[in-house]
Amino acid sequence: MNSAARRDLFLWGVDALNCLESRILRDGRVLPGGILKVDGFLNHQMDVTLFEEMAEEFHRAFSSCGVNKILTIEASGIGLACITGRVFGCPVLFAKKHLTKNLAGQFYTAQVASFTHGCTYTIVVSRDFLSPADRVLIIDDFLANGEALKGLISLAEQAGAVVVGAGVAVEKAFQPGGEAVRAMGYRVKALARIRSMEDGKITFC
Amino acid sequence: MNSAARRDLFLWGVDALNCLESRILRDGRVLPGGILKVDGFLNHQMDVTLFEEMAEEFHRAFSSCGVNKILTIEASGIGLACITGRVFGCPVLFAKKHLTKNLAGQFYTAQVASFTHGCTYTIVVSRDFLSPADRVLIIDDFLANGEALKGLISLAEQAGAVVVGAGVAVEKAFQPGGEAVRAMGYRVKALARIRSMEDGKITFC
Repeated sequence: MNSAARRDLFLWGVDALNCLESRILRDGRVLPGGILKVDGFLNHQMDVTLFEEMAEEFHRAFSSCGVNKILTIEASGIGLACITGRVFGCPVLFAKKHLTKNLAGQFYTAQVASFTHGCTYTIVVSRDFLSPADRVLIIDDFLANGEALKGLISLAEQAGAVVVGAGVAVEKAFQPGGEAVRAMGYRVKALARIRSMEDGKITFC
Repeated sequence: MNSAARRDLFLWGVDALNCLESRILRDGRVLPGGILKVDGFLNHQMDVTLFEEMAEEFHRAFSSCGVNKILTIEASGIGLACITGRVFGCPVLFAKKHLTKNLAGQFYTAQVASFTHGCTYTIVVSRDFLSPADRVLIIDDFLANGEALKGLISLAEQAGAVVVGAGVAVEKAFQPGGEAVRAMGYRVKALARIRSMEDGKITFC
């Protein structure tokens, strides 16, 4: 965020919000069914300048953790993960989603239940690209029920890699995923933690 | 590529190759069926440092075209498109793949035949994010038969946007897509144009 934008936000009385929270209040919309529509800047059209600020926040949180690989999941995690990988100076690996369960031995696989789509799919990464030498930071756009995040943790740990934590753009803190993953002992940095979207009004934790 | 790497390549007699071509020769593999496996640095694990050099090449080619939007397609185009969007300083939009054909009026849609998967899918972008004000650079990882690229061009032109050209990482120049899209009048910048992969040996144009 440039200094003029920060000053504007200060004048609006929202100086305590970070760049993503401010943007959600300005451009996000709450749709029926508890859907937060942020497709103008986060997960369909992507504001890579905003992503850079978000990546810097992830770097401040995890810079001392020896991260040497970013792990994410297709499709909407890839953009933020790549901008974050640039800041960390390390490669980015994305898990692929398959509907078939029987995959050959060249992949690590995990099952992920999708509440949005009402199905279970298999996520896979090649065994070539995760190993015990890896210190993995997981990046994703949303954390709600935590199924995708738990699947990514499983992929990394099957390979013997260390998961140093997860950076997510938006956590729906009124859903159980964040609490569950933190209770498993993982550090989760969420840039915007939404406490409530009742009556279409977004409030942060 | 840093100067030491350039010097090494010069000493090896491959100074005429760019960063991507050099990497393909070093780490790419040709599999039966004409498949070029570059999943260690391009389309599964992604070397974002390499992507930055590739994005700079796209910027040199299209910097005078007034690009104000990058358009790509999920999933493997997104990473390179985001790094490219950072260099151009503009937002990145990715088309989504659907297997359903009937989508409501809020999307631009195009049909894309996939030779790899033996099916036809619908690609979509929201009408909110493409308009006649847009000067679009299309970015993708592979150009072979050109079906995805033609679909992306169609999406942009349905919106009245101007397609200034396409930047692709790898063009399989022995397949017809590149020639077809150029014959339609579009400028295509391919960073690695593969002339042949016969007997597992990769040669560039």
